[in-house]
Amino acid sequence: MGVEPTVRDGLDRDETAALTALAARIRELTEAAVLTGAGAGEAAAVADELAALTARLSAVRRAAPPFTGTGESGIDRQIANPVAGTINPIAPPVDIEVTPDGIARAEFTLSQVYEGPPAYVHGGVSAMVLDQVLGMAAAATGNHGMTATLELRYRRPTPLGVPLLVEAKASRTEGRKIYADGAITGPDGRVTVEATALFVMPRR
Amino acid sequence: MGVEPTVRDGLDRDETAALTALAARIRELTEAAVLTGAGAGEAAAVADELAALTARLSAVRRAAPPFTGTGESGIDRQIANPVAGTINPIAPPVDIEVTPDGIARAEFTLSQVYEGPPAYVHGGVSAMVLDQVLGMAAAATGNHGMTATLELRYRRPTPLGVPLLVEAKASRTEGRKIYADGAITGPDGRVTVEATALFVMPRR
Repeated sequence: MGVEPTVRDGLDRDETAALTALAARIRELTEAAVLTGAGAGEAAAVADELAALTARLSAVRRAAPPFTGTGESGIDRQIANPVAGTINPIAPPVDIEVTPDGIARAEFTLSQVYEGPPAYVHGGVSAMVLDQVLGMAAAATGNHGMTATLELRYRRPTPLGVPLLVEAKASRTEGRKIYADGAITGPDGRVTVEATALFVMPRR
Repeated sequence: MGVEPTVRDGLDRDETAALTALAARIRELTEAAVLTGAGAGEAAAVADELAALTARLSAVRRAAPPFTGTGESGIDRQIANPVAGTINPIAPPVDIEVTPDGIARAEFTLSQVYEGPPAYVHGGVSAMVLDQVLGMAAAATGNHGMTATLELRYRRPTPLGVPLLVEAKASRTEGRKIYADGAITGPDGRVTVEATALFVMPRR
């Protein structure tokens, strides 16, 4: 049982753009649902209409999320990823670029949907972002591995609703092992969370 | 700048039930959006209708997500939490109970919205779930702390679409420090991810 791996097609330019816009609208809806004070009756009425829209989208359903789309730059992305994927409504999304010298980096802002302690980012959300960015830094070495260990050090709370910076870089490779380090930095330039990860490449 | 902490009211029974149902419909919509093959035109049409529904929910908007609601058991919960919160659409949600002997545990299933490697849970999502459950185990000692360090050891991939178990327990307390351990276990009874965390209580 469970979900089987399947061969997946990429999306064409029109579908990528439409699903990216759809995900953006669902992010706005999600934030509105967490903050609404419109009352039980209005929430129930909106919920009924959502069920009908879900049915329309589900009229044709893929077996698994698409992997790649065609962005404006023409570069394929992991577009349904829950951290970085533009078509995944739960992704902030964190739009990660990898520089020629192998630094994975993104500027991003987290809404109150991602709140843990009052007015701060949930520690697990910071962990999720760092896992993704360190993984992309490791992959920038040309070797793709699975996360083996991830260590997070929380230096101070990470604020919601302000621009954050996340950066990571592979520090060394030993056989099938790739080590990477990274951090999230707040708008005052101070590091809020540091991370170190070990990724292990599958045996050939 | 950023989000300021605010005093927050709890939700009454009717509003808790209505927002819980609304979040469930948004989770179904989110999964449909990630899997839809209905085409660019239909996705754009649905997106337009969503914007109108978001405006209805936003007609009255709280300054911050509510903290507590009244569940069927009458026990207050952190209802907008991005991991465990029933009214937060990005939360699976992981419905965590704490046993009288201090074990925080939950059975949960993750949809393809949470996919990392093909057919498996994103490593950062597992980290997010473990941070939350270890934090609740630490809080079960009667002391509330912030995450200081979180170490994750990925033993094998965590499957999507099947029942998973997560359990955690505080292992010891030293002054303002609380240590906790936990793991996610797959349906075959094998541990997929282990975690150790240190939580530090604020100075009085």
